Amino acid sequence: MVRIGLLGGTGIEAAGLALRFASAGVQVILGSRSRERAAAAAAAGNAILGRPLLQGLANPEMLELSEIVFLTVPFAQAVDAVEQCRSLLRRPHIVVDVTVPLIFSAGGAEYCGPNIGSNAENIAPHLPADVPLVAAFKTIPASVLADLHTALHCDVFVCGDVAGAKQSVIAAAALIPSLRPLDCGPLRMARTLERMTVLAADLNRRHRKKGARFRVEGI
Amino acid sequence: MVRIGLLGGTGIEAAGLALRFASAGVQVILGSRSRERAAAAAAAGNAILGRPLLQGLANPEMLELSEIVFLTVPFAQAVDAVEQCRSLLRRPHIVVDVTVPLIFSAGGAEYCGPNIGSNAENIAPHLPADVPLVAAFKTIPASVLADLHTALHCDVFVCGDVAGAKQSVIAAAALIPSLRPLDCGPLRMARTLERMTVLAADLNRRHRKKGARFRVEGI
Repeated sequence: MVRIGLLGGTGIEAAGLALRFASAGVQVILGSRSRERAAAAAAAGNAILGRPLLQGLANPEMLELSEIVFLTVPFAQAVDAVEQCRSLLRRPHIVVDVTVPLIFSAGGAEYCGPNIGSNAENIAPHLPADVPLVAAFKTIPASVLADLHTALHCDVFVCGDVAGAKQSVIAAAALIPSLRPLDCGPLRMARTLERMTVLAADLNRRHRKKGARFRVEGI
Repeated sequence: MVRIGLLGGTGIEAAGLALRFASAGVQVILGSRSRERAAAAAAAGNAILGRPLLQGLANPEMLELSEIVFLTVPFAQAVDAVEQCRSLLRRPHIVVDVTVPLIFSAGGAEYCGPNIGSNAENIAPHLPADVPLVAAFKTIPASVLADLHTALHCDVFVCGDVAGAKQSVIAAAALIPSLRPLDCGPLRMARTLERMTVLAADLNRRHRKKGARFRVEGI
């Protein structure tokens, strides 16, 4: 069974992924620059799970134990977070970018990433050459992931330029109930996925909801 | 009841919209530069409907009789099509852009619109100042619309800068069964919708299907 680590493991995005994967029987390690904060986040998650499934460790220990590493820091910190642990990233690590360059303004949710490209494509060149980046889970709200009482009933869109890495992420995501992984092609499809998340955030605002997420009908 | 006209009424996109709206009880007029081709397309649609609900007319006559005018030409011809009938567009016309800048290459479906902007935003400045442009139906495959035996089970994403026009299109779309219109904000959200259609086309190709379309869960 694959082991999943979360780089930036103390935020809401990490909590949601950790709870869903741990519930699906996957070993999950929350990583943080502070071992204490990681342990506290793991304890909070374990209280929700009712079982001590999550482990909280400092980032180097987390990376030592993990194969799939989710990048769950805020979007603007993603490149720095990768650079800070670059020397510890190596095969067979797969890094999964879930970040979305999104800000809220008076007019609603706004995309604030590069006009040409995506946050995922900005991050990719900062990884070691033999560590692939996969983009996934960008369109699923953290609050929905973190609420284990809500069935997901949606698709997780997965894209990346290294087929094997992408398939590993798809296989892991397929363990989560009520979630269908869809191979969405090369990493540059993250341009679309990041913008879809902005649309979902805007729909949430208009409808006073928090859980807007996508599913594809007809395939 | 609103009357719907289709500018570029002889193609598959027009056929799908015409069949769905006519089935919902809306008066639909197919427009073409050639009255004969418009009449033939209407006859073909009426044969499917089993009732003479569609009318086929030359574009000037179609525009005279229509309030909501769907632009159903191929994406690269949209600006020319608008320019050619610009003198006949006037209040209370609402123009609805359904085009998607999409090409198929060896690698799959590719977005080929402007890097900053969208086909919808390219078209808008060519309309008379008092005729609003709404973008809608971009993400629903024409082949699915044209197959009345397939329940849509999806959302239609509607965006535009003139609230009243957008609401009129939403009200019309709401007449179609199994289709939920969603207000997606200003016209620039078409950037996202057009790219989503490329994603759907790519998913179709991977899964050897034709009907990929989106619905939003959680709102």
